[in-house]
Amino acid sequence: MMTKGNINVSVENIFPLIKKFLYSDHEIFLRELISNATDATLKLKHLTGIGEAKVEYGNPKLEVKIDKDQKTLRIIDQGIGMTGEEVEKYINQVAFSGAEEFLEKYKDSAKDSGIIGHFGLGFYSAFMVAEKVEILTKSYKDEPAVRWICDGSPEFTLEETSDKTDRGTEIILYIAEDSVEFLEEGKIRELLLKYNKFMPVPIKFGTKTHTLPLPEDAPEDAVAETEEVDNIINNPVPAWTIAPSELTNEDYMKFYHELYPMQFEEPLFNIHLNVDYPFNLTGVLFFPKLSNNLNIDKDKIQLYQNQVFVTDEVKGIVPDFLMLLRGVIDSPDIPLNVSRSYLQADGAVKKISSYITKKVADKMASLINENREDYEKKWNDIKIVIEYGIITEEKFAEKADKFTLYPTTDGKYFLWDELIEKIKPIQTDKDNKLVVLYATNADEQHSYIQSAKDKGYEVLLLDSPIISHVIQKLETSKENISFARVDADHVNNLIKKDEPVISKLNETEKESLKKNVEEAIQDTKFTVQLEDLDSDDAPFTITQPEFMRRMKEMQATGGGGMFGMGGFPEMYNLVVNSNSELSNQILKTENAEEKESLIKYALDLAKLSQNLLKGKDLTDFIQRSYKQLEK
Amino acid sequence: MMTKGNINVSVENIFPLIKKFLYSDHEIFLRELISNATDATLKLKHLTGIGEAKVEYGNPKLEVKIDKDQKTLRIIDQGIGMTGEEVEKYINQVAFSGAEEFLEKYKDSAKDSGIIGHFGLGFYSAFMVAEKVEILTKSYKDEPAVRWICDGSPEFTLEETSDKTDRGTEIILYIAEDSVEFLEEGKIRELLLKYNKFMPVPIKFGTKTHTLPLPEDAPEDAVAETEEVDNIINNPVPAWTIAPSELTNEDYMKFYHELYPMQFEEPLFNIHLNVDYPFNLTGVLFFPKLSNNLNIDKDKIQLYQNQVFVTDEVKGIVPDFLMLLRGVIDSPDIPLNVSRSYLQADGAVKKISSYITKKVADKMASLINENREDYEKKWNDIKIVIEYGIITEEKFAEKADKFTLYPTTDGKYFLWDELIEKIKPIQTDKDNKLVVLYATNADEQHSYIQSAKDKGYEVLLLDSPIISHVIQKLETSKENISFARVDADHVNNLIKKDEPVISKLNETEKESLKKNVEEAIQDTKFTVQLEDLDSDDAPFTITQPEFMRRMKEMQATGGGGMFGMGGFPEMYNLVVNSNSELSNQILKTENAEEKESLIKYALDLAKLSQNLLKGKDLTDFIQRSYKQLEK
Repeated sequence: MMTKGNINVSVENIFPLIKKFLYSDHEIFLRELISNATDATLKLKHLTGIGEAKVEYGNPKLEVKIDKDQKTLRIIDQGIGMTGEEVEKYINQVAFSGAEEFLEKYKDSAKDSGIIGHFGLGFYSAFMVAEKVEILTKSYKDEPAVRWICDGSPEFTLEETSDKTDRGTEIILYIAEDSVEFLEEGKIRELLLKYNKFMPVPIKFGTKTHTLPLPEDAPEDAVAETEEVDNIINNPVPAWTIAPSELTNEDYMKFYHELYPMQFEEPLFNIHLNVDYPFNLTGVLFFPKLSNNLNIDKDKIQLYQNQVFVTDEVKGIVPDFLMLLRGVIDSPDIPLNVSRSYLQADGAVKKISSYITKKVADKMASLINENREDYEKKWNDIKIVIEYGIITEEKFAEKADKFTLYPTTDGKYFLWDELIEKIKPIQTDKDNKLVVLYATNADEQHSYIQSAKDKGYEVLLLDSPIISHVIQKLETSKENISFARVDADHVNNLIKKDEPVISKLNETEKESLKKNVEEAIQDTKFTVQLEDLDSDDAPFTITQPEFMRRMKEMQATGGGGMFGMGGFPEMYNLVVNSNSELSNQILKTENAEEKESLIKYALDLAKLSQNLLKGKDLTDFIQRSYKQLEK
Repeated sequence: MMTKGNINVSVENIFPLIKKFLYSDHEIFLRELISNATDATLKLKHLTGIGEAKVEYGNPKLEVKIDKDQKTLRIIDQGIGMTGEEVEKYINQVAFSGAEEFLEKYKDSAKDSGIIGHFGLGFYSAFMVAEKVEILTKSYKDEPAVRWICDGSPEFTLEETSDKTDRGTEIILYIAEDSVEFLEEGKIRELLLKYNKFMPVPIKFGTKTHTLPLPEDAPEDAVAETEEVDNIINNPVPAWTIAPSELTNEDYMKFYHELYPMQFEEPLFNIHLNVDYPFNLTGVLFFPKLSNNLNIDKDKIQLYQNQVFVTDEVKGIVPDFLMLLRGVIDSPDIPLNVSRSYLQADGAVKKISSYITKKVADKMASLINENREDYEKKWNDIKIVIEYGIITEEKFAEKADKFTLYPTTDGKYFLWDELIEKIKPIQTDKDNKLVVLYATNADEQHSYIQSAKDKGYEVLLLDSPIISHVIQKLETSKENISFARVDADHVNNLIKKDEPVISKLNETEKESLKKNVEEAIQDTKFTVQLEDLDSDDAPFTITQPEFMRRMKEMQATGGGGMFGMGGFPEMYNLVVNSNSELSNQILKTENAEEKESLIKYALDLAKLSQNLLKGKDLTDFIQRSYKQLEK
């Protein structure tokens, strides 16, 4: 026998769940009630706008009031209000959303009304903090006001009242013993500033004293009069809701400081986001100066929905490389109750992320075109974001040649195409490969940079911690290009040319020189490599092969590199200039001890160049040198 | 007129919400259904245990099966089963928790039964991924099996069936079009391993081939026979559910690798947590070797509830300084639907966090007592955790003297009391203050360390990035102690003694020497400071005052330090040894150019000692030195 039936849900079961389970953060109740009050106001605005409500809309505001004696918190609006019948319908039925119904009814006209509500559950969050909730409400329609009271049990009372004569709704929370923190002015102010700072209807919270200007003819000792004015806690028209064409740079800066009151430095650039197809998204992003990174964790990009703050955990919505930016994103299309793995899978979110990426790329391209000099000045502060984008977002990398700068150790800045044009004639080697030379530290690699510049080469200064990854990426995406750090080999070998080599020593002498050096240094870290260089070139030079060094660096900065390279010993080449006067001298010196000390001293000097002379060796070197001086 | 009534909730309204809103992660459905199946099994275990169910409990397991053709996913248990009446009661009523009812009924005996269910909502999560759900179930009681079908509308059908003859419940999900990923074996395996890896009832997912051992007398060319066996995906008895006394070190290691299959290195220590009052908590924490920190973000502490994986976001539950550890915490007392600000406020969570802190401190103290040598060897890998704890958790700091080691540059390790006893006689200055000397880099500060050791002082090697904070903390919590890095001043000034000073130069000579040096170096970074030192001491020494340097370091590593110190220029003292032969020589040299070059060369050497000779200056120094060599 088959029975049919309906699954049912009882309010006794669901009510405790709403309290416990719906929002793990109790403080959310205030956001929800303010959202409801805002919706009530925006609905009235819409109805007066389309002529359906024949009342004056005026300049309505919300008000939040604390009464510590009575232990109440009140949220008062001047919106649409409810009739007794509407209370029955919207309040007494859990999970029936008046906002959804409104949007459904006024589909076409109300699309952009900014109405927030969704699930019809927000009101009940009041019971997370209140032992009793009272509603006093009077509709814009000519009907009596009503009072609704419920103590959190499923039972309520509803009656007509003459206690409310103004249009709108007043929610009175009788705060429960375990939630008295919500009777503290400081706490409520904090919550209003966190969640409601940019909501579209003015919110009054207390009053403040305002000093009136003195009349122009006032005597010098006149005391200015003061008056009490409403303390409006929010900015109902934040920058991201305004068309970019109506905003000046100062407006953006003002908004930045409004958003991050503890940030004193100006941001470098702003990017205004504005799209309504295939999804709705507005926002303003800022490139901060990253030098002072104390607040990185605190002042993050904030996510809003219809001007209600949702979260500042935007991982997944904003691509990783843009997490270093600041600002606001407002979109009703981002799922509210977000979890990371969900976001990664959500199609809408993926589109949003790639839109933001594209928009940032376009903005960078236009910024460099508008003011190249200014962009160059700011490059050092923004490069880490761009570089991180290049190695993690293919779409971004594809556009990056238009706005990625390659600075030289001389303070010049090239775009990629400019760089290639500049260096192609001189830095192409005998196998027709173009070699880009770079340094990662102008100080530490000074002598190597100098040698390269003496040849007329350009040396880039690429000093980001993730630069090895960027270089690796460039080498695979560009053709017939390789990068070499200036100390990867002797400059003659970095860019090999078909040039005749003159050798002052014969093969026997060379062999003997090599043997001498190897015996004196006794260090397997160094591979001795004789080269016929200019006699003026440094007698000894220590180099570190590009590939191995880069792999190790890539591994150290996470990902890439080769497995197990971390533990690999550092390997160097010791380039001995066989044409140098010193080489000649080493060969000539007969006394074995003198020969060794000559070689060791030269090695110490070469090590100094590579920042390799340390600890006891350095102390000994210095002591010997002082002694020398005192002779 | 007052009306009374009951708030009501309709299933039409609530059902869509459960699908959309309850779990933002759709994949959670599998965890919920497996939890239900586990509960059904554990309930039967309990009832047979207390003799209320007169059936054989046996060795029940769960099974998960995919049928790609039929697009079904099935979860089958051999547990308690449901009668038609029970289906009516538990399934057809949303948010009625059978688990809660069971625990209430068998309060005393079932306290530790491990039953998971709570809210009675889990089953409905099936509708997040399925367009139709079917239940086939047969109770352990002698009643017919029933079939329940629902297509996600609130309408269901229920009928007796002869399709199921075994005891237990089978849930059949007809996976919806948009959720076909849950028909992939790889996906389901991934989810089972993520959420159910340590659940208490064996879970079968497919079969695997098992090679039978050969009989001992088998010929050499015998081929081993194979058989298909159940592929059990979980370990129902993980280490943390076993008494520590029954576990060997190997068991802990095995568990570690089970938990983190991609970690190849062994952890250093483990800490078994076990408390049941005033809250319930078990777990095992591991100190990993932090040297290879590639997996820091991935292999985090995992939070379980009754052996169900909940999350690996344990911020708030575990104190910050222990977030670098790995392992498992299992507690039914941690609120599931956690948000950070909620956790911070929750009393139970605070207690848990401070219990873990205390437990770790106690364990460290016992580890060092058990095997000091081993602890010393591991110190370098664990110090960052201990140090971070000292500066962030007062309770931890109070106990830390018992297990915090202070290594010296000579490789000795002292506990605080041992250190004080050792250095008190010799490192107390003339004002009776004890001065602790330290280096942060044995290589870079080699010459300064040497000078201190020549005086018989102990030099600690404190090289963590957060050491300035630790030192600052120690100076305020210990009395009459100060720390100084070996290069903070000349060693004679670091620990001032009442010793006679011999001066080779008179005041006029000193003044003239100082003037000579100041004129030659022309650098406002250096304050010239004449000292009457041993004639053998270095002629020039560069020092960097402790306070300023430490404040800058503290600011660089976040928090502490003084506002605005970041941008402050580096300031050094140039200590000129007026008794050195070089000082004498400088005074004697008449030729201005020679005098200047003498001073500059000495300054270069002093800079080398402090790692301050860089870039062009270093290149010039090296070139000059090569030239010198060739003369």
